[in-house]
Amino acid sequence: MENLKEKGAEALRKIREEKPLVHNITNFVVMNYTANALLAIGASPVMAHSIDEVEDMVSLARALVLNIGTLEREWIESMIKAGKRANKLGVPVILDPVGAGATPLRTETSKRIIEEVRLSSIRGNASEILSLTDERGRTKGVDSLHEVEEVWKEGLKLSQELKTVIAITGKVDFITDGKRGFRCFNGHPLLRWVTGTGCTATVIIASFLAVEKDPLLATAFGLSYFGIAGEKAAEKTSSSGSYGIALLDAIYEIKEEEFAEKMRLEEVKI
Amino acid sequence: MENLKEKGAEALRKIREEKPLVHNITNFVVMNYTANALLAIGASPVMAHSIDEVEDMVSLARALVLNIGTLEREWIESMIKAGKRANKLGVPVILDPVGAGATPLRTETSKRIIEEVRLSSIRGNASEILSLTDERGRTKGVDSLHEVEEVWKEGLKLSQELKTVIAITGKVDFITDGKRGFRCFNGHPLLRWVTGTGCTATVIIASFLAVEKDPLLATAFGLSYFGIAGEKAAEKTSSSGSYGIALLDAIYEIKEEEFAEKMRLEEVKI
Amino acid sequence: MENLKEKGAEALRKIREEKPLVHNITNFVVMNYTANALLAIGASPVMAHSIDEVEDMVSLARALVLNIGTLEREWIESMIKAGKRANKLGVPVILDPVGAGATPLRTETSKRIIEEVRLSSIRGNASEILSLTDERGRTKGVDSLHEVEEVWKEGLKLSQELKTVIAITGKVDFITDGKRGFRCFNGHPLLRWVTGTGCTATVIIASFLAVEKDPLLATAFGLSYFGIAGEKAAEKTSSSGSYGIALLDAIYEIKEEEFAEKMRLEEVKI
Repeated sequence: MENLKEKGAEALRKIREEKPLVHNITNFVVMNYTANALLAIGASPVMAHSIDEVEDMVSLARALVLNIGTLEREWIESMIKAGKRANKLGVPVILDPVGAGATPLRTETSKRIIEEVRLSSIRGNASEILSLTDERGRTKGVDSLHEVEEVWKEGLKLSQELKTVIAITGKVDFITDGKRGFRCFNGHPLLRWVTGTGCTATVIIASFLAVEKDPLLATAFGLSYFGIAGEKAAEKTSSSGSYGIALLDAIYEIKEEEFAEKMRLEEVKI
Repeated sequence: MENLKEKGAEALRKIREEKPLVHNITNFVVMNYTANALLAIGASPVMAHSIDEVEDMVSLARALVLNIGTLEREWIESMIKAGKRANKLGVPVILDPVGAGATPLRTETSKRIIEEVRLSSIRGNASEILSLTDERGRTKGVDSLHEVEEVWKEGLKLSQELKTVIAITGKVDFITDGKRGFRCFNGHPLLRWVTGTGCTATVIIASFLAVEKDPLLATAFGLSYFGIAGEKAAEKTSSSGSYGIALLDAIYEIKEEEFAEKMRLEEVKI
Repeated sequence: MENLKEKGAEALRKIREEKPLVHNITNFVVMNYTANALLAIGASPVMAHSIDEVEDMVSLARALVLNIGTLEREWIESMIKAGKRANKLGVPVILDPVGAGATPLRTETSKRIIEEVRLSSIRGNASEILSLTDERGRTKGVDSLHEVEEVWKEGLKLSQELKTVIAITGKVDFITDGKRGFRCFNGHPLLRWVTGTGCTATVIIASFLAVEKDPLLATAFGLSYFGIAGEKAAEKTSSSGSYGIALLDAIYEIKEEEFAEKMRLEEVKI
């Protein structure tokens, strides 16, 4: 664990030193907030979705975020195109299957992306992750109807099939690459009162993927960092609007030592 | 009035207990803010506009918001399609005709939606509501050039023709279903310094429509609740940026008793 | 300089008195924030991008903002169409070539807009401005890889060729119409930690363009006003999330006298 804390702090130091460009093809609801979150941690965000430029943009990037939160047809092609180019260039790709399980469009698009693009990591809530497996997941809009623990096994199996890191987030997060696993205990109940906190966790993971080669560690570090920010923000306010702002402040403020100190990752035997 | 206060408090309790899914096909400017407002009051927001999923999504929802603030051609078809499905399923639909009167596209789209979809409620400023009648309204962008009082009669007539609740919002709000009416005195001048407060009032009404069967009451409760939040936020700050955040905090904080106590709805004789 | 300060204060007074409608065809990331910034300074924002209404909307406006931050094909045609109509009506147009230099789509679109629309002002960072010249600019996503001073000469030449005000923004801003020039020393390092502050500077300039006939002065006033707001916000907080809110507060709060007093514009000999 000491080694893990050191590695996490080192990855954070790299984000702030190298300011990696993170290319986002994401939903309209969270574009502003996740761009601010990426700036706050020290990364350099760009949002670009036109089929006419996604390949050019991802060529400049160190990580690619695909988020299906407000999907439309043309965007799906852009996501696939950007993802394939990222694969060729060795740029890590993370998928956030927002609302998968709620509508066939979201479930099928997520599955198509998974088939056509090699992903470093997938982060979703329990319902979303379940909907990616053969088990039928149900999702209430973009909120989960399942607990993390319920879909643990399905997530592990999916991870092994896809050779991709799967992160199931909820009260306690479960992260696995099919061989090793972590539980992340950082986080705060107020996070669910701000829109796009799942999406924001995803872009924080993307920042770590840009600098840390092991996608399991990058995903675990991202979720832990984001959870710590959630804890720190709750020290400032207990109302949802100001909490969203305090969360950005916390993402900006957390130093390497504080990250290492507050990290609550527990290795899980697979 | 005591009965009204109790009913309002009861509806608020239901929102928080049942967390109704509110499906929004809305404009790009306010998506993040209105999603946060819906979360703050206790509802569960989802934004989805693709013609390929709006029918599926609205089938999961308890209310549908159609907001034309940043219209484009494909979105109009999605709004109609979602609205018709909502009608079939008995899901209440509210229209926010943002900027109707400013351009023919907005006026004509609003009128087309009104013709093709059975609406539970329409909320707009005086110019927007006037533009939906045969009287020619004028709108300066998305701001009203008329006072609520000036269009009172036209609003009432429209309500009777469409058998829909009409809410004309401004300094004092006027709400009618053509038979009964309310004036709402809650609100604060600072609200007009934050973008999308009209749109936010609309989604708060949608939350009440999801749990209260009488659309006149639901609309009146929504406007009163939102106005109270505006008053409460003004106790914290007098600058526009922090007011927008304090407004979300207030929407989150107001309890049932406080809502009942501060509600300022006055019945109007029709 | 006293005369300049007076003229700036007078322009600010006019914005607040006349509340000019500013029509924005802009990117998804900043729509909410720039609408709030326009409200805060006293202008009246409208966002509208459909090819079916941009000509109607710009006819009501006193300034037009074209911002290519999240470009897609249809939007380019809307920008050109709105720009041409604005030209016919004498409505000033400002271009924000976000990310020009990063992808061919952005560079070529910016150049096409410059060819087809007569612009009052162009505001970009050093890389963006350089990419509009024959010199090849490089841009890292939407961040500059060049300092303002490095592209001073190219900016001046571009300004003379296009007969347009060029504003290159960075630590110190350089503004010229090809004959006269200003350096603007207002601003704060925290501004780069909030997404869309460049875009926000652009809409503040647009507010001044709406009321001040000389586009060189309007651009200089806009950048100075925005920089002062950045300085004032930094007195309240040193974290990025709350800084973004404090910035809106400052834009709302600055009075004419304060603007005149803190204005730091220095005339440059061309």
